Amino acid sequence: MNKVKEEGPFTYSVILAGGAGTRFWPLSREKMPKQFLTLIGEDSLLQQTVRRVRDLSPLERMIVVTSKSQVDEILLQLSPKRKENGVSPCPVIVEPRGLNTAPAIGLAAVFIRRLDPDGVMVVLPSDHYIRDQEKFTQDIGSAVSAAREGHLVTLGIPPTRPETGFGYIEYDPASNGKKNYRSVLSFREKPDLRTAQGYLSQGRYLWNSGMFVWKAAAILTEIGRHLPGLARSLGRVEQVINDVGGPAYPHATDLLETREMIQAIEELYKEVEPISIDYGVMEKSKNVVVVPASFDWSDVGSFSALFDLLPRDGQGNVISGRVFDLESENSLIRGDHRLVATVGLKDLIVVDTEDAVLICARDRAQDVRRIVEQIKDKGGEESVIHRTVKRPWGSYTLLDQGDKFKAKRMIINPNSRMSLQIHHHRSEHWVVVSGTARVYVADKVYDLHPGESTFVPASARHRIENPGVIPTVIVEAQYGEYLGEDDIVRFDDDYGRV
Amino acid sequence: MNKVKEEGPFTYSVILAGGAGTRFWPLSREKMPKQFLTLIGEDSLLQQTVRRVRDLSPLERMIVVTSKSQVDEILLQLSPKRKENGVSPCPVIVEPRGLNTAPAIGLAAVFIRRLDPDGVMVVLPSDHYIRDQEKFTQDIGSAVSAAREGHLVTLGIPPTRPETGFGYIEYDPASNGKKNYRSVLSFREKPDLRTAQGYLSQGRYLWNSGMFVWKAAAILTEIGRHLPGLARSLGRVEQVINDVGGPAYPHATDLLETREMIQAIEELYKEVEPISIDYGVMEKSKNVVVVPASFDWSDVGSFSALFDLLPRDGQGNVISGRVFDLESENSLIRGDHRLVATVGLKDLIVVDTEDAVLICARDRAQDVRRIVEQIKDKGGEESVIHRTVKRPWGSYTLLDQGDKFKAKRMIINPNSRMSLQIHHHRSEHWVVVSGTARVYVADKVYDLHPGESTFVPASARHRIENPGVIPTVIVEAQYGEYLGEDDIVRFDDDYGRV
Repeated sequence: MNKVKEEGPFTYSVILAGGAGTRFWPLSREKMPKQFLTLIGEDSLLQQTVRRVRDLSPLERMIVVTSKSQVDEILLQLSPKRKENGVSPCPVIVEPRGLNTAPAIGLAAVFIRRLDPDGVMVVLPSDHYIRDQEKFTQDIGSAVSAAREGHLVTLGIPPTRPETGFGYIEYDPASNGKKNYRSVLSFREKPDLRTAQGYLSQGRYLWNSGMFVWKAAAILTEIGRHLPGLARSLGRVEQVINDVGGPAYPHATDLLETREMIQAIEELYKEVEPISIDYGVMEKSKNVVVVPASFDWSDVGSFSALFDLLPRDGQGNVISGRVFDLESENSLIRGDHRLVATVGLKDLIVVDTEDAVLICARDRAQDVRRIVEQIKDKGGEESVIHRTVKRPWGSYTLLDQGDKFKAKRMIINPNSRMSLQIHHHRSEHWVVVSGTARVYVADKVYDLHPGESTFVPASARHRIENPGVIPTVIVEAQYGEYLGEDDIVRFDDDYGRV
Repeated sequence: MNKVKEEGPFTYSVILAGGAGTRFWPLSREKMPKQFLTLIGEDSLLQQTVRRVRDLSPLERMIVVTSKSQVDEILLQLSPKRKENGVSPCPVIVEPRGLNTAPAIGLAAVFIRRLDPDGVMVVLPSDHYIRDQEKFTQDIGSAVSAAREGHLVTLGIPPTRPETGFGYIEYDPASNGKKNYRSVLSFREKPDLRTAQGYLSQGRYLWNSGMFVWKAAAILTEIGRHLPGLARSLGRVEQVINDVGGPAYPHATDLLETREMIQAIEELYKEVEPISIDYGVMEKSKNVVVVPASFDWSDVGSFSALFDLLPRDGQGNVISGRVFDLESENSLIRGDHRLVATVGLKDLIVVDTEDAVLICARDRAQDVRRIVEQIKDKGGEESVIHRTVKRPWGSYTLLDQGDKFKAKRMIINPNSRMSLQIHHHRSEHWVVVSGTARVYVADKVYDLHPGESTFVPASARHRIENPGVIPTVIVEAQYGEYLGEDDIVRFDDDYGRV
């Protein structure tokens, strides 16, 4: 490839991928929030978000901010076929805890300014749905132009209903002449219905979408002005970049994985108060403009919002999975692999998963989070994790559990292997039922074929590898006093998890 | 016990336990119909039926008529703690196929007349619900008196609503003076709504409950008169009783298990047309009287009927299992062991089982059978069998299945053992996870403790025994070309299944 080395300033995307995973329960879980779900089309909302900005900024000019428990899934989703050992496809900033958007955005800005002093950053939530790629690219282009002029730019969505669940942006429709952006007069908190109706009729209010475009340097200046505490902590992170950075660390990814950087970020998250960039900076800054969006947008805020986005059949239903229905209407019915039978439903949401089923009146979809709180309060692990968990090497499904035992089905992808590991508190029996397994137990290595089995005593080093070209399927029976996933010591891993 | 040997004539109960298992799907299955389910109270409807007649006729004066696929469950339910090898607690007539009620009743009558020429038989469906034991006993007593006078007696239920799902009995309220029974004028087929309203207001119509009382000799006489084909076939069965019966076969149970008897019954079921005793005999006989029932009665004909029988909470709901509910009303919500979450439901039925969930508008409960037909047409085994199957020795649960493999959890009760068996097409790995398993594999016998395992190759004789005092739990992985339950050859069995 005869590729000329490009020169900055470039445009960088910052994808905010946090999220608690309550409104789409039981599809979403604490460890599998909405952005990772395939709700519309073939890809997850995160994957759609990444694809959407690929023209603006390739993977190497993208930064994802997420939490520790979601890193594995992020890496899986961004490069599902990745084989290289422990190489992230893009820098990932791991937040020790969620502190709303300002600290996440500030951190990303520090890195971007270091890489590219005049770089522009496009901040995008990872869990929204946007249908019209072309209009989106065009609007972001307008926002990038305004950002290059020095403005803090927000994207506003022309409201289509008196929504009380969003913040609003009041703007001056007559400002800035022929430019594609308008001056922002004020930010408004989530209104009551009457106020929202007023906003809708007045025509100079837009929904606050949470999408922002600005120079990294510009937002850092504003953070310095309005959030001095955060600015001080960010200064110390910048100091680490200067100290350990430079020729030895050309990539933000490498830099992020140094002990010094991890420590600096941990300290920042200890000191700083949670605050949104909207409340902390945008509402106070004099330099904010808005680009009214021309694309279709949804925050996919509930099963009801999802229902509105999906194509319906002749009876107004959205049905997927192994569902047998008799004369239901205007309902969302989603099966997983179990059988779901429905008779005469009206305006209902039915979502079935391996370990939990939700049945909810469509106009009560916003209350799903209340049910999830109840389940969490009672210690129900169905609020936290799915029965099937994806791993870089394949997946496992919890089949059964009881006092001192668990049964799992494990699927290892061709040419993949688990980490070399031990468990202190459990032994494992593996029965191969499909494909070939190359097993490492203590000092031995041998291949098992379907119908064959082996035993791994507690504290024995072990690993399973699929040397073949079809998936290896193993039924595993674990026995031990403690069976938590955290009883694992890794010695070697193809996916950087040691 | 200083028990004087009683002399006949006695009263015998005949429990009709057939049923297809569609209206209570997914609780009921083809192999687990309604009478076996615990829908109300602690016992199944069958067990309640048996308990209800125990005063009239002890187990040895009871005959159960059922189908081949239900025999095991009948024996389990009638004597769950039974240990003796292959001894039925009562005679069980196994119908080769369902032919409605006339052949079943005729067969039972032939046996009873042979045992006790003047014996009276009380014919009861096994899947009805009756609340008031005392009134039931009293009404049956009235019916037995009438039967001893030579009448064919039916029990009629005073209607409480214009039900279109039942047949009606028209009777003469002024007949038979101070006796507790009345003369029947006519039997009426299931009416349309207007006709049913007429019946309800006229006060001389009763619901046909399907409960009958008569001398065995009397019903056989009437069968001879109105169903000559059936009578001829029954005559041949009686001939077998005379040929192989007598001193060598004092018990109906032994007699029923002779090859000659099994063959005679099979021939009868090949020759005879399906017909109900109502249509075939009762509507034509001149000798029919009715005892109007004084007890509460329900045929528990649908989830909606069940809902009407169960106590409700303050919001009108009937909720059981691991259910998290938010503000639902007048709904039946029944979980099994998975988590069920419900929000804002109204007048719904939700029934969750291990492999299928039903959500149905309460006023559409009668259409559940239509869904089951659809599932059956598509070959869905969820219409046939549950994931957890009870066995005389304990139970097994299907955890997972795929191409050429199944995973199961098996629970073997203390002091119980499976049959000595082989499978031609599959090998099995057993991992003990609780209790102790004494395993017999080929020529070896050894004990396995939790965390230990063994392998059973295809075609090897094997057996699992629980020699201990707590349940033995085993995770089993099967591998083979064919994994059907019918790939089993039994050599020795504590439960007479060789």
